[in-house]
Amino acid sequence: MKVALVGGTGPAGIGLGARLARAGHDVFVGSRSEERAHEAVAKIVELAGGGSVNGGTNRNVVPGAEVVVLSLHAEAQPDAVRTLAGLLDGKIVVSMANPVTVADGRATFEAPPAGSLAEQAQRDAPGARVVSALHEIRVSRFAKVDRAIDSDTIVTGDDATAKEAVMALCADLGVRPVDGGPLANSRYVEAFVAVLVSINFRYKAGVSYRITGIPENR
Amino acid sequence: MKVALVGGTGPAGIGLGARLARAGHDVFVGSRSEERAHEAVAKIVELAGGGSVNGGTNRNVVPGAEVVVLSLHAEAQPDAVRTLAGLLDGKIVVSMANPVTVADGRATFEAPPAGSLAEQAQRDAPGARVVSALHEIRVSRFAKVDRAIDSDTIVTGDDATAKEAVMALCADLGVRPVDGGPLANSRYVEAFVAVLVSINFRYKAGVSYRITGIPENR
Repeated sequence: MKVALVGGTGPAGIGLGARLARAGHDVFVGSRSEERAHEAVAKIVELAGGGSVNGGTNRNVVPGAEVVVLSLHAEAQPDAVRTLAGLLDGKIVVSMANPVTVADGRATFEAPPAGSLAEQAQRDAPGARVVSALHEIRVSRFAKVDRAIDSDTIVTGDDATAKEAVMALCADLGVRPVDGGPLANSRYVEAFVAVLVSINFRYKAGVSYRITGIPENR
Repeated sequence: MKVALVGGTGPAGIGLGARLARAGHDVFVGSRSEERAHEAVAKIVELAGGGSVNGGTNRNVVPGAEVVVLSLHAEAQPDAVRTLAGLLDGKIVVSMANPVTVADGRATFEAPPAGSLAEQAQRDAPGARVVSALHEIRVSRFAKVDRAIDSDTIVTGDDATAKEAVMALCADLGVRPVDGGPLANSRYVEAFVAVLVSINFRYKAGVSYRITGIPENR
Protein backbone atom coordinates (compact mmCIF):
# COMPACT_ATOMS: atom_id res chain seq x y z
CA MET A 1 0.00 0.00 0.00
CA LYS A 2 0.97 3.64 -0.31
CA VAL A 3 1.67 4.75 3.25
CA ALA A 4 2.46 8.33 4.26
CA LEU A 5 4.20 8.94 7.58
CA VAL A 6 3.21 12.39 8.77
CA GLY A 7 5.99 13.72 10.98
CA GLY A 8 7.91 10.64 9.98
CA THR A 9 11.40 12.00 10.61
CA GLY A 10 11.61 10.87 14.24
CA PRO A 11 12.39 7.42 15.64
CA ALA A 12 8.82 6.18 15.10
CA GLY A 13 8.77 7.22 11.46
CA ILE A 14 12.21 5.84 10.71
CA GLY A 15 11.48 2.47 12.26
CA LEU A 16 7.98 2.17 10.83
CA GLY A 17 9.19 3.31 7.42
CA ALA A 18 11.93 0.71 7.35
CA ARG A 19 9.63 -2.14 8.38
CA LEU A 20 6.95 -1.06 5.89
CA ALA A 21 9.50 -0.73 3.07
CA ARG A 22 10.83 -4.19 3.84
CA ALA A 23 7.30 -5.56 3.66
CA GLY A 24 6.97 -4.13 0.16
CA HIS A 25 4.89 -1.04 0.84
CA ASP A 26 5.47 2.33 -0.82
CA VAL A 27 6.58 4.68 1.92
CA PHE A 28 6.21 8.46 1.78
CA VAL A 29 7.92 10.33 4.59
CA GLY A 30 6.30 13.64 5.45
CA SER A 31 7.67 16.51 7.47
CA ARG A 32 7.07 20.20 7.79
CA SER A 33 10.60 20.51 6.36
CA GLU A 34 11.24 18.95 2.97
CA GLU A 35 14.95 18.72 3.77
CA ARG A 36 14.37 16.73 6.93
CA ALA A 37 11.99 14.44 5.05
CA HIS A 38 14.73 13.62 2.57
CA GLU A 39 17.22 12.98 5.38
CA ALA A 40 14.73 10.54 6.89
CA VAL A 41 14.26 8.82 3.53
CA ALA A 42 17.99 8.14 3.42
CA LYS A 43 17.96 6.72 6.93
CA ILE A 44 15.00 4.48 6.15
CA VAL A 45 16.53 3.14 2.94
CA GLU A 46 19.74 2.36 4.79
CA LEU A 47 17.90 0.66 7.65
CA ALA A 48 15.64 -1.32 5.33
CA GLY A 49 18.38 -2.12 2.84
CA GLY A 50 16.35 -0.62 -0.01
CA GLY A 51 12.70 -0.29 -0.84
CA SER A 52 10.30 2.24 -2.29
CA VAL A 53 10.80 5.27 -0.04
CA ASN A 54 10.16 8.89 -0.93
CA GLY A 55 9.71 12.09 1.01
CA GLY A 56 8.31 15.59 0.98
CA THR A 57 6.30 18.00 3.03
CA ASN A 58 3.32 16.58 4.90
CA ARG A 59 1.04 18.47 2.50
CA ASN A 60 2.81 16.91 -0.47
CA VAL A 61 2.90 13.28 0.68
CA VAL A 62 -0.62 12.93 2.09
CA PRO A 63 -2.68 13.33 -1.13
CA GLY A 64 -1.12 10.29 -2.84
CA ALA A 65 -1.33 7.98 0.16
CA GLU A 66 -3.94 5.34 0.92
CA VAL A 67 -2.93 5.17 4.59
CA VAL A 68 -1.66 8.13 6.60
CA VAL A 69 0.20 7.26 9.80
CA LEU A 70 0.40 10.08 12.32
CA SER A 71 4.00 9.60 13.51
CA LEU A 72 3.77 12.52 15.88
CA HIS A 73 4.23 13.30 19.54
CA ALA A 74 0.95 13.40 21.41
CA GLU A 75 1.27 17.15 22.09
CA ALA A 76 1.78 17.90 18.40
CA GLN A 77 -0.88 15.65 16.93
CA PRO A 78 -4.10 17.69 17.34
CA ASP A 79 -2.66 20.81 15.70
CA ALA A 80 -1.15 18.77 12.88
CA VAL A 81 -4.46 17.00 12.24
CA ARG A 82 -6.39 20.25 12.17
CA THR A 83 -3.87 21.74 9.73
CA LEU A 84 -4.12 18.75 7.39
CA ALA A 85 -7.82 18.00 7.96
CA GLY A 86 -9.07 18.65 4.43
CA LEU A 87 -6.35 16.50 2.91
CA LEU A 88 -7.30 13.57 5.14
CA ASP A 89 -10.82 13.20 3.69
CA GLY A 90 -11.37 9.57 2.74
CA LYS A 91 -7.90 8.51 3.90
CA ILE A 92 -7.24 5.75 6.38
CA VAL A 93 -5.54 7.63 9.22
CA VAL A 94 -3.63 5.78 11.93
CA SER A 95 -3.46 7.39 15.38
CA MET A 96 -0.74 5.80 17.52
CA ALA A 97 0.41 8.47 19.97
CA ASN A 98 -0.39 8.26 23.68
CA PRO A 99 -1.33 11.34 25.69
CA VAL A 100 0.45 10.04 28.77
CA THR A 101 2.55 12.45 30.80
CA VAL A 102 5.10 11.63 33.46
CA ALA A 103 5.66 13.80 36.53
CA ASP A 104 7.09 12.94 39.94
CA GLY A 105 7.62 9.38 38.80
CA ARG A 106 3.94 8.91 38.00
CA ALA A 107 2.38 8.36 34.61
CA THR A 108 -0.99 9.94 33.94
CA PHE A 109 -3.38 9.72 30.99
CA GLU A 110 -4.30 13.26 29.96
CA ALA A 111 -7.62 12.77 28.20
CA PRO A 112 -8.11 15.09 25.23
CA PRO A 113 -11.54 16.76 24.98
CA ALA A 114 -12.79 14.02 22.64
CA GLY A 115 -11.76 11.27 25.10
CA SER A 116 -8.62 10.03 23.38
CA LEU A 117 -6.15 11.25 20.77
CA ALA A 118 -7.68 8.95 18.17
CA GLU A 119 -11.19 10.24 18.82
CA GLN A 120 -9.79 13.77 18.80
CA ALA A 121 -8.31 13.14 15.35
CA GLN A 122 -11.68 11.84 14.16
CA ARG A 123 -13.43 14.90 15.55
CA ASP A 124 -10.90 17.29 13.99
CA ALA A 125 -10.81 15.52 10.63
CA PRO A 126 -14.37 14.21 10.29
CA GLY A 127 -13.81 13.00 6.72
CA ALA A 128 -10.90 10.77 7.74
CA ARG A 129 -11.29 7.07 8.46
CA VAL A 130 -9.40 7.05 11.75
CA VAL A 131 -8.02 3.81 13.13
CA SER A 132 -6.20 3.60 16.46
CA ALA A 133 -3.27 1.18 16.73
CA LEU A 134 0.30 0.55 17.86
CA HIS A 135 -0.05 2.20 21.26
CA GLU A 136 1.64 -0.63 23.10
CA ILE A 137 5.00 -0.56 21.37
CA ARG A 138 7.89 1.71 22.26
CA VAL A 139 8.77 3.46 19.04
CA SER A 140 12.45 2.55 19.37
CA ARG A 141 11.45 -1.08 18.88
CA PHE A 142 10.48 -0.55 15.28
CA ALA A 143 13.97 0.59 14.26
CA LYS A 144 15.42 -2.75 15.38
CA VAL A 145 14.21 -4.21 12.12
CA ASP A 146 15.74 -7.64 12.63
CA ARG A 147 14.36 -8.12 16.08
CA ALA A 148 10.92 -9.60 16.78
CA ILE A 149 8.52 -7.44 18.77
CA ASP A 150 7.01 -9.40 21.67
CA SER A 151 3.70 -7.55 21.70
CA ASP A 152 0.21 -7.53 20.34
CA THR A 153 -1.50 -4.33 19.32
CA ILE A 154 -5.13 -3.58 19.94
CA VAL A 155 -6.68 -1.93 16.91
CA THR A 156 -9.88 0.09 17.28
CA GLY A 157 -11.95 1.92 14.71
CA ASP A 158 -15.44 2.47 13.38
CA ASP A 159 -14.71 1.81 9.68
CA ALA A 160 -14.41 -1.95 9.27
CA THR A 161 -12.53 -1.84 5.96
CA ALA A 162 -10.06 0.74 7.27
CA LYS A 163 -9.53 -1.29 10.41
CA GLU A 164 -8.82 -4.44 8.42
CA ALA A 165 -6.27 -2.61 6.30
CA VAL A 166 -4.50 -1.28 9.37
CA MET A 167 -4.54 -4.70 11.03
CA ALA A 168 -2.81 -6.10 7.94
CA LEU A 169 -0.20 -3.32 8.13
CA CYS A 170 0.41 -4.11 11.81
CA ALA A 171 1.02 -7.74 10.93
CA ASP A 172 3.52 -6.56 8.29
CA LEU A 173 5.23 -4.53 11.02
CA GLY A 174 5.68 -7.71 13.03
CA VAL A 175 2.99 -7.03 15.61
CA ARG A 176 -0.08 -9.25 16.01
CA PRO A 177 -3.21 -7.13 15.64
CA VAL A 178 -6.24 -7.73 17.84
CA ASP A 179 -9.57 -6.15 16.94
CA GLY A 180 -10.48 -4.08 20.00
CA GLY A 181 -13.84 -2.77 18.83
CA PRO A 182 -15.00 0.77 18.12
CA LEU A 183 -12.80 3.85 18.07
CA ALA A 184 -14.31 4.92 21.39
CA ASN A 185 -12.34 2.09 23.00
CA SER A 186 -9.12 3.86 22.11
CA ARG A 187 -9.44 5.89 25.28
CA TYR A 188 -9.02 2.74 27.33
CA VAL A 189 -6.11 1.52 25.23
CA GLU A 190 -4.32 4.87 25.35
CA ALA A 191 -4.95 5.27 29.08
CA PHE A 192 -3.62 1.79 29.80
CA VAL A 193 -0.25 2.88 28.44
CA ALA A 194 0.12 4.81 31.71
CA VAL A 195 0.06 1.44 33.47
CA LEU A 196 2.69 0.03 31.12
CA VAL A 197 4.88 3.05 31.87
CA SER A 198 4.37 2.50 35.61
CA ILE A 199 5.39 -1.13 35.23
CA ASN A 200 8.48 0.01 33.31
CA PHE A 201 9.42 2.26 36.25
CA ARG A 202 8.90 -0.50 38.76
CA TYR A 203 10.74 -3.27 36.90
CA LYS A 204 13.24 -1.15 34.95
CA ALA A 205 11.91 -2.76 31.80
CA GLY A 206 10.19 -1.98 28.55
CA VAL A 207 6.99 -3.93 28.80
CA SER A 208 4.05 -4.53 26.52
CA TYR A 209 1.28 -7.09 26.48
CA ARG A 210 -0.15 -10.03 24.64
CA ILE A 211 -3.81 -10.94 24.65
CA THR A 212 -4.37 -14.53 25.77
CA GLY A 213 -7.32 -16.75 24.97
CA ILE A 214 -8.01 -15.80 21.35
CA PRO A 215 -8.84 -18.97 19.40
CA GLU A 216 -6.09 -19.70 16.87
CA ASN A 217 -8.49 -20.66 14.08
CA ARG A 218 -10.69 -17.62 14.22
CA MET B 1 -3.27 -15.92 55.82
CA LYS B 2 -6.75 -15.34 57.18
CA VAL B 3 -8.77 -14.23 54.19
CA ALA B 4 -12.40 -13.07 54.36
CA LEU B 5 -14.48 -13.12 51.19
CA VAL B 6 -17.15 -10.45 51.53
CA GLY B 7 -20.10 -11.45 49.39
CA GLY B 8 -18.25 -14.70 48.81
CA THR B 9 -21.26 -16.83 47.99
CA GLY B 10 -21.19 -16.21 44.23
CA PRO B 11 -18.98 -17.79 41.59
CA ALA B 12 -16.06 -15.47 42.40
CA GLY B 13 -16.13 -16.28 46.07
CA ILE B 14 -16.52 -20.02 45.55
CA GLY B 15 -13.64 -20.23 43.11
CA LEU B 16 -11.34 -17.91 45.05
CA GLY B 17 -12.19 -19.66 48.29
CA ALA B 18 -11.38 -23.08 46.85
CA ARG B 19 -8.04 -21.95 45.41
CA LEU B 20 -7.09 -20.13 48.62
CA ALA B 21 -8.05 -23.13 50.76
CA ARG B 22 -5.96 -25.39 48.55
CA ALA B 23 -3.02 -23.05 48.99
CA GLY B 24 -3.32 -23.44 52.77
CA HIS B 25 -5.02 -20.18 53.66
CA ASP B 26 -7.79 -19.87 56.24
CA VAL B 27 -10.90 -18.87 54.34
CA PHE B 28 -13.87 -17.07 55.87
CA VAL B 29 -16.88 -16.74 53.62
CA GLY B 30 -19.03 -13.72 54.35
CA SER B 31 -22.56 -12.97 53.23
CA ARG B 32 -25.44 -10.85 54.36
CA SER B 33 -27.14 -14.18 55.02
CA GLU B 34 -25.43 -16.57 57.42
CA GLU B 35 -27.27 -19.48 55.84
CA ARG B 36 -25.95 -18.70 52.38
CA ALA B 37 -22.47 -18.31 53.79
CA HIS B 38 -22.62 -21.82 55.18
CA GLU B 39 -23.90 -23.18 51.87
CA ALA B 40 -20.93 -21.56 50.16
CA VAL B 41 -18.55 -23.07 52.70
CA ALA B 42 -19.82 -26.52 51.80
CA LYS B 43 -19.32 -25.83 48.09
CA ILE B 44 -15.81 -24.53 48.63
CA VAL B 45 -14.78 -27.50 50.76
CA GLU B 46 -16.13 -29.86 48.13
CA LEU B 47 -14.36 -28.01 45.30
CA ALA B 48 -11.08 -27.74 47.22
CA GLY B 49 -11.26 -31.25 48.61
CA GLY B 50 -10.93 -29.96 52.16
CA GLY B 51 -9.20 -27.02 53.80
CA SER B 52 -9.83 -24.48 56.52
CA VAL B 53 -13.08 -22.87 55.44
CA ASN B 54 -15.63 -21.15 57.66
CA GLY B 55 -18.51 -18.79 57.13
CA GLY B 56 -20.75 -16.19 58.68
CA THR B 57 -22.19 -12.78 58.08
CA ASN B 58 -19.91 -10.19 56.50
CA ARG B 59 -19.85 -8.36 59.84
CA ASN B 60 -18.80 -11.52 61.63
CA VAL B 61 -16.04 -12.68 59.29
CA VAL B 62 -14.27 -9.37 58.62
CA PRO B 63 -12.92 -8.62 62.11
CA GLY B 64 -10.77 -11.77 62.28
CA ALA B 65 -9.34 -11.47 58.78
CA GLU B 66 -6.00 -10.08 57.70
CA VAL B 67 -7.13 -9.72 54.10
CA VAL B 68 -10.68 -8.87 53.03
CA VAL B 69 -11.54 -9.65 49.42
CA LEU B 70 -14.54 -7.77 48.09
CA SER B 71 -16.18 -10.57 46.06
CA LEU B 72 -19.02 -8.35 44.99
CA HIS B 73 -20.65 -7.13 41.83
CA ALA B 74 -19.52 -3.67 40.82
CA GLU B 75 -22.96 -2.16 41.47
CA ALA B 76 -23.09 -3.59 44.98
CA GLN B 77 -19.56 -2.78 46.10
CA PRO B 78 -19.75 0.90 47.12
CA ASP B 79 -22.74 0.38 49.42
CA ALA B 80 -21.19 -2.72 50.95
CA VAL B 81 -17.92 -0.88 51.60
CA ARG B 82 -19.69 2.05 53.22
CA THR B 83 -21.67 -0.33 55.42
CA LEU B 84 -18.55 -2.15 56.57
CA ALA B 85 -16.18 0.85 56.54
CA GLY B 86 -15.36 0.92 60.26
CA LEU B 87 -14.60 -2.80 60.33
CA LEU B 88 -12.12 -2.42 57.46
CA ASP B 89 -9.75 -0.13 59.38
CA GLY B 90 -6.22 -1.47 59.09
CA LYS B 91 -7.30 -4.41 56.95
CA ILE B 92 -5.84 -5.22 53.57
CA VAL B 93 -8.87 -4.88 51.28
CA VAL B 94 -8.84 -6.28 47.76
CA SER B 95 -11.00 -4.56 45.15
CA MET B 96 -11.45 -6.74 42.08
CA ALA B 97 -14.79 -5.74 40.54
CA ASN B 98 -15.00 -3.85 37.25
CA PRO B 99 -17.54 -1.09 36.70
CA VAL B 100 -18.00 -2.04 33.07
CA THR B 101 -21.51 -2.11 31.63
CA VAL B 102 -22.64 -3.65 28.37
CA ALA B 103 -25.39 -2.15 26.22
CA ASP B 104 -26.12 -2.51 22.51
CA GLY B 105 -23.13 -4.81 22.18
CA ARG B 106 -20.73 -2.20 23.52
CA ALA B 107 -18.77 -2.28 26.74
CA THR B 108 -18.28 0.97 28.62
CA PHE B 109 -16.28 1.84 31.71
CA GLU B 110 -18.58 3.69 34.11
CA ALA B 111 -16.15 5.66 36.22
CA PRO B 112 -17.23 5.98 39.87
CA PRO B 113 -16.87 9.46 41.39
CA ALA B 114 -13.45 8.57 42.84
CA GLY B 115 -12.18 7.45 39.40
CA SER B 116 -12.33 3.69 39.88
CA LEU B 117 -14.03 1.20 42.16
CA ALA B 118 -10.79 0.62 44.05
CA GLU B 119 -10.27 4.33 44.65
CA GLN B 120 -13.93 4.59 45.62
CA ALA B 121 -13.40 1.87 48.22
CA GLN B 122 -10.39 3.75 49.58
CA ARG B 123 -12.39 6.97 49.75
CA ASP B 124 -15.33 5.27 51.46
CA ALA B 125 -13.17 3.28 53.88
CA PRO B 126 -10.23 5.61 54.49
CA GLY B 127 -8.73 3.41 57.20
CA ALA B 128 -8.52 0.39 54.87
CA ARG B 129 -5.36 -0.54 52.99
CA VAL B 130 -6.98 -0.97 49.58
CA VAL B 131 -5.23 -2.97 46.89
CA SER B 132 -6.67 -3.43 43.42
CA ALA B 133 -6.16 -6.78 41.70
CA LEU B 134 -7.64 -9.64 39.69
CA HIS B 135 -9.57 -7.47 37.25
CA GLU B 136 -8.42 -9.42 34.22
CA ILE B 137 -9.80 -12.80 35.11
CA ARG B 138 -13.32 -14.00 34.50
CA VAL B 139 -14.56 -15.16 37.86
CA SER B 140 -15.71 -18.49 36.45
CA ARG B 141 -12.05 -19.35 35.83
CA PHE B 142 -11.26 -19.57 39.50
CA ALA B 143 -13.74 -22.40 40.08
CA LYS B 144 -11.90 -24.60 37.59
CA VAL B 145 -9.39 -25.32 40.29
CA ASP B 146 -7.36 -27.83 38.31
CA ARG B 147 -7.01 -25.66 35.26
CA ALA B 148 -4.18 -23.12 34.84
CA ILE B 149 -5.20 -19.51 34.30
CA ASP B 150 -3.42 -18.02 31.29
CA SER B 151 -3.34 -14.48 32.62
CA ASP B 152 -1.32 -12.01 34.60
CA THR B 153 -2.93 -9.63 37.02
CA ILE B 154 -1.89 -6.04 37.47
CA VAL B 155 -1.88 -5.13 41.15
CA THR B 156 -2.06 -1.49 42.19
CA GLY B 157 -2.01 0.10 45.61
CA ASP B 158 -0.46 2.79 47.76
CA ASP B 159 0.51 0.60 50.74
CA ALA B 160 3.60 -1.34 49.71
CA THR B 161 3.26 -4.04 52.38
CA ALA B 162 -0.39 -4.60 51.59
CA LYS B 163 0.37 -4.75 47.88
CA GLU B 164 3.09 -7.36 48.44
CA ALA B 165 0.72 -9.49 50.50
CA VAL B 166 -1.93 -9.36 47.78
CA MET B 167 0.61 -10.14 45.08
CA ALA B 168 1.58 -13.26 47.04
CA LEU B 169 -2.08 -14.24 47.29
CA CYS B 170 -2.50 -13.79 43.54
CA ALA B 171 0.42 -16.11 42.94
CA ASP B 172 -1.26 -18.65 45.24
CA LEU B 173 -4.39 -18.29 43.11
CA GLY B 174 -2.35 -19.27 40.05
CA VAL B 175 -2.14 -15.81 38.50
CA ARG B 176 1.17 -14.02 38.00
CA PRO B 177 1.04 -10.64 39.76
CA VAL B 178 2.59 -7.57 38.16
CA ASP B 179 3.11 -4.42 40.23
CA GLY B 180 1.19 -1.73 38.36
CA GLY B 181 2.01 1.22 40.62
CA PRO B 182 -0.24 3.39 42.75
CA LEU B 183 -3.95 2.79 43.42
CA ALA B 184 -4.78 5.68 41.09
CA ASN B 185 -3.71 3.43 38.20
CA SER B 186 -6.61 1.12 38.97
CA ARG B 187 -8.86 3.37 36.86
CA TYR B 188 -6.83 2.43 33.79
CA VAL B 189 -6.81 -1.26 34.65
CA GLU B 190 -10.55 -1.35 35.36
CA ALA B 191 -11.35 0.67 32.23
CA PHE B 192 -9.24 -1.64 30.08
CA VAL B 193 -11.56 -4.50 30.97
CA ALA B 194 -14.06 -2.86 28.60
CA VAL B 195 -11.56 -3.57 25.82
CA LEU B 196 -11.18 -7.19 26.91
CA VAL B 197 -14.98 -7.53 26.84
CA SER B 198 -15.05 -6.01 23.34
CA ILE B 199 -12.43 -8.49 22.20
CA ASN B 200 -14.53 -11.29 23.69
CA PHE B 201 -17.50 -10.12 21.62
CA ARG B 202 -15.45 -9.94 18.46
CA TYR B 203 -13.64 -13.28 18.80
CA LYS B 204 -16.28 -15.19 20.78
CA ALA B 205 -13.59 -15.84 23.36
CA GLY B 206 -12.70 -15.24 26.98
CA VAL B 207 -9.52 -13.25 26.73
CA SER B 208 -7.08 -11.84 29.22
CA TYR B 209 -3.52 -10.57 28.92
CA ARG B 210 0.05 -11.22 29.86
CA ILE B 211 2.64 -8.52 30.32
CA THR B 212 5.69 -9.12 28.14
CA GLY B 213 9.21 -7.83 28.69
CA ILE B 214 9.52 -8.16 32.47
CA PRO B 215 13.00 -9.45 33.30
CA GLU B 216 12.78 -12.95 34.76
CA ASN B 217 15.40 -12.34 37.46
CA ARG B 218 13.93 -9.14 38.82
